[in-house]
Amino acid sequence: MLQTLPFTIESLHNAYQGDVKAQDIVEEVFRRIDTVNDPGIFIHLFEKQEVIAAANALGDFDPSKSLWGIPFVIKDNIDAVDHPTTAGCPAFAYEAKENAFVVQALLDAGAILIGKTNLDQFATGLVGVRSPFTPPKNSMDPEIVPGGSSGGSGVAVGHGLVTFSLGTDTAGSGRVPAALNNIIGLKPTLGALSNTGVVPACRTLDTVSIFALTVEDAYQAYSVAAKFDPEDSYARVVQTPPLAAPAPSFKIGIPNASTREFFGDTVQQASFLDSVDQLASFGAEIVEMDFTPFYEVAKMLYEGAWTAERYTVIEDLLKSDPEAIHPVTRGIIQSAENFTSADTFRGFYRLQDYKSKAQPLIDSVDMLCVPSIPTFYSIKDLEEDPVGPNSRYGTYTNFVNLMDMCGIAVPVKTRSDGRPGSVTLLAPAGQDVVTASLASKLHQNSAPTLGATDWMLPEVSYEKPAAGPSEIVIAAVGAHMSGLPLNGELTKLGARFLYSSKTSPDYKLYKLAGGPPFRPGLIQEEGGASIELEIWALPKSNFGAFIDNIPSPLGIGTVTLANGEEVKGFICESKGKVGAEDITKFGGWRAFLNSQ
Amino acid sequence: MLQTLPFTIESLHNAYQGDVKAQDIVEEVFRRIDTVNDPGIFIHLFEKQEVIAAANALGDFDPSKSLWGIPFVIKDNIDAVDHPTTAGCPAFAYEAKENAFVVQALLDAGAILIGKTNLDQFATGLVGVRSPFTPPKNSMDPEIVPGGSSGGSGVAVGHGLVTFSLGTDTAGSGRVPAALNNIIGLKPTLGALSNTGVVPACRTLDTVSIFALTVEDAYQAYSVAAKFDPEDSYARVVQTPPLAAPAPSFKIGIPNASTREFFGDTVQQASFLDSVDQLASFGAEIVEMDFTPFYEVAKMLYEGAWTAERYTVIEDLLKSDPEAIHPVTRGIIQSAENFTSADTFRGFYRLQDYKSKAQPLIDSVDMLCVPSIPTFYSIKDLEEDPVGPNSRYGTYTNFVNLMDMCGIAVPVKTRSDGRPGSVTLLAPAGQDVVTASLASKLHQNSAPTLGATDWMLPEVSYEKPAAGPSEIVIAAVGAHMSGLPLNGELTKLGARFLYSSKTSPDYKLYKLAGGPPFRPGLIQEEGGASIELEIWALPKSNFGAFIDNIPSPLGIGTVTLANGEEVKGFICESKGKVGAEDITKFGGWRAFLNSQ
Repeated sequence: MLQTLPFTIESLHNAYQGDVKAQDIVEEVFRRIDTVNDPGIFIHLFEKQEVIAAANALGDFDPSKSLWGIPFVIKDNIDAVDHPTTAGCPAFAYEAKENAFVVQALLDAGAILIGKTNLDQFATGLVGVRSPFTPPKNSMDPEIVPGGSSGGSGVAVGHGLVTFSLGTDTAGSGRVPAALNNIIGLKPTLGALSNTGVVPACRTLDTVSIFALTVEDAYQAYSVAAKFDPEDSYARVVQTPPLAAPAPSFKIGIPNASTREFFGDTVQQASFLDSVDQLASFGAEIVEMDFTPFYEVAKMLYEGAWTAERYTVIEDLLKSDPEAIHPVTRGIIQSAENFTSADTFRGFYRLQDYKSKAQPLIDSVDMLCVPSIPTFYSIKDLEEDPVGPNSRYGTYTNFVNLMDMCGIAVPVKTRSDGRPGSVTLLAPAGQDVVTASLASKLHQNSAPTLGATDWMLPEVSYEKPAAGPSEIVIAAVGAHMSGLPLNGELTKLGARFLYSSKTSPDYKLYKLAGGPPFRPGLIQEEGGASIELEIWALPKSNFGAFIDNIPSPLGIGTVTLANGEEVKGFICESKGKVGAEDITKFGGWRAFLNSQ
Repeated sequence: MLQTLPFTIESLHNAYQGDVKAQDIVEEVFRRIDTVNDPGIFIHLFEKQEVIAAANALGDFDPSKSLWGIPFVIKDNIDAVDHPTTAGCPAFAYEAKENAFVVQALLDAGAILIGKTNLDQFATGLVGVRSPFTPPKNSMDPEIVPGGSSGGSGVAVGHGLVTFSLGTDTAGSGRVPAALNNIIGLKPTLGALSNTGVVPACRTLDTVSIFALTVEDAYQAYSVAAKFDPEDSYARVVQTPPLAAPAPSFKIGIPNASTREFFGDTVQQASFLDSVDQLASFGAEIVEMDFTPFYEVAKMLYEGAWTAERYTVIEDLLKSDPEAIHPVTRGIIQSAENFTSADTFRGFYRLQDYKSKAQPLIDSVDMLCVPSIPTFYSIKDLEEDPVGPNSRYGTYTNFVNLMDMCGIAVPVKTRSDGRPGSVTLLAPAGQDVVTASLASKLHQNSAPTLGATDWMLPEVSYEKPAAGPSEIVIAAVGAHMSGLPLNGELTKLGARFLYSSKTSPDYKLYKLAGGPPFRPGLIQEEGGASIELEIWALPKSNFGAFIDNIPSPLGIGTVTLANGEEVKGFICESKGKVGAEDITKFGGWRAFLNSQ
């Protein structure tokens, strides 16, 4: 039954393994678009015949192409060859001569592009109604704004019209619509996705972002799109190892009670605190923080200098045809005319002061968790005040790119009033896999239906995640395990937890002489037992820095796991037995510590 | 004979170990100042009695204080408590309430501050004559400009009035005066030295810099001053390991023939090429590069937006009393009034484009070597054209802070016409020790007299080569040693041989079961002996790839050398003894192989 087929990658690829053809799915996409019947979603829906031709050009199903036959849409500030790019402003429109770099990467992996979606003009806004085109309707509740600026892309995924969509995210445009449409909003590390062929908002702070119904699908599309683009001078090389189960223990920073802001929405507050409890139940140590430095950073984005980045994009149009620009957008961007170069540098200095206060907070934990949005605003609220509610939507999003963090907005349990719950997990640049892995677990544990559909979240489990090609597996046996005193030596170097394991049944565990920190020694010898391990993945490039801190008699060698597999891990020279206590009977360092 | 005593740290500390008191040195400093009789060097020379009081307050010679009794001066844009800071502009002057952070660090280490030196007003210039105060005279040749902006600090060290001095360096102000006065100019990694208590030029690109007669003295002062300052939001933690012999082989990038620029000075060209030959004789592979991307980056500094950083510093004065500002300086800085915030961001985008082209060139070598200055300009040249020669002095300096590199200007052989030769070594941020170590070797091999004095460069040798900050030391004991079957696993990962060594006399060496390749196991245990090792340096980033190939029962742990030093190296788990042959008596794997 195609009409009820969930549009997740797994579900579609299962269908393709049967009789279903890509053309059938394209037909179904267009049928669903007709059924939803919201003319605000697309600025430019492609002709069905054109899309069917593209689908047929894919040939036979090729499961080696990870996005084969997967329908997607893109925000209309991203180029698709031979189609217009409007950025939500007809007077600005141009015909794209090439696909944007990321679009081409997705097409190369077999994805099928359906059309181009509505947005807050020039990606300036978080509401989705600042467009001269009919705004899209929120997929969950048409009274509520769809969210922006990537509103059409968010709503399209919310309805399950396509598997994933591209937005862009400078101030929160890839997260706010996710929260409002009950979907995933993956905001990559700046520079991970190329901006070649994307209309800039703030070029120093822009990233393409990804909406999907599941974390797995968002991350899959992200992994395909995250190719280094030498033509984008802001591009960075970011690794995309596979998703994995999160570490059994980690630190999460949240705003403390006096700096949590819900603008009176106690239901949203309760929803957020419930998610925090859930993270704690996964093993998170919750660290309450004074969020003032983050809010101070956030304010910089629309106060002052950074609006001038937006100004550089539309200066010609502002001068030649100001009326062509949405009046609210025009008001915001035109204010840049009052700022001098000196003001800009003063802004940078102030930002740097705030950042140097916020950075130690980030460094003190593994991740931050914030509400994706503080509360909900209706279309009517925005008609009454087009600026205030928009600003408040950015409470927990505006600081993120300025602080060079990656993030992912993920649905959590439906609020007590039936509205969608959502939190955002944030981590330093490059750790997209870490936030996504935890988001997946949160999503699984919330078990809601997907977006505005009645599809159930498919079960996923990462029983034994693997290291990526640029990582080395390390078996930790002592204080480097999660939650123990030296775990930071792993996590600060970008290591990620893979799974818990045990050695083959022939290892002795010793408590070595000396300390603190107290350290165990693992020696494969007669009379041994199976000893508890944690298997971590460490970027190979950081292994030298890691081993610098490992003192005699410990070293890194080869450890045999219970299943016979060999991995790199902590070993101990035989001289370490001098003065050491045999603690093999505890079966592991953690059990030994608990016994003390 | 105090009057001929070289003012190097070593020479002064030797004197202090005898009868000489700090007060005697202060008297001698003031005598030398009188003898040189250049009223342009100091804007504010402290009262002798005040300095003597500070010297006496140091008490008895304390060799544990690395700068005990060492006289120094600071550029007059750096604060000294209870003294005025003018930045070369009387109308701007204020009384400093505290010492600058770096000044305090130097005083805490026992240094003695003598006074505050002349500069190009607001540190804007590379010539040293843009000051309303009488400009200092070049210490080598009064017809030539002293260099700027840290002119007084450069000339004071050139004459040997003090051991070292502080300048600042945004565009080259810490390197050009060094080249013109035959001294060392160490330009630290941005953020390594605090800017708290320093008048900004371009706050995002400023660093305090150090002049001294020898690399060792400059690096010593740098190491003391490089304390992390949490109050400076641009501060970074930078390591200052000891100077060491440079690696026996390394890559140096230089401008290729068509992008070398000497403005017709063929003598300077010959001098530069001679230095390059010298580097090649040290083992450098010379890589000729198209330097156009660096020049494009350099041009950004005075064209456009960055002048607005200078504007933010003096905006009030420019508005209230423009005539109080040096007309050339005013002309440069006032141009910032024409730049908008949008222009600034457009400048950033252009800079990023250039940087993304220049960065791969930097990444392809270990260091760059450039002429410190392209040629020499006289006072008369500057009177005729106050801007052109100044700009040309920045040819090889302006791009450095924009590219986030550290550098050191070092005297090389005197030019064929008797003028001082100087090259600058440049490396990525944080590698100050690498550039300084090579600069020391270059200086030693040029064997010139120091500055304008007749003091000879003291001999220094770093006999035992050390690993660089991005390398890890590995003690190889078996087939990984040079000439043996697995040595390629080290060399293909960029490892370099450091030296031969032995273990402490308590290691046993076993020929392990299995093979080929046959492998030894090194186990620290009773009945051991001193075993032959080779010490290699492996790039930390490649360590993970290296360890991937090491099979059980071998691992990497800590090996104790004969001198008690501990390094990372091959270890062997005790289980390796099963079926192994004790070959300790051969004293090493190579000797064992030879016996077969």
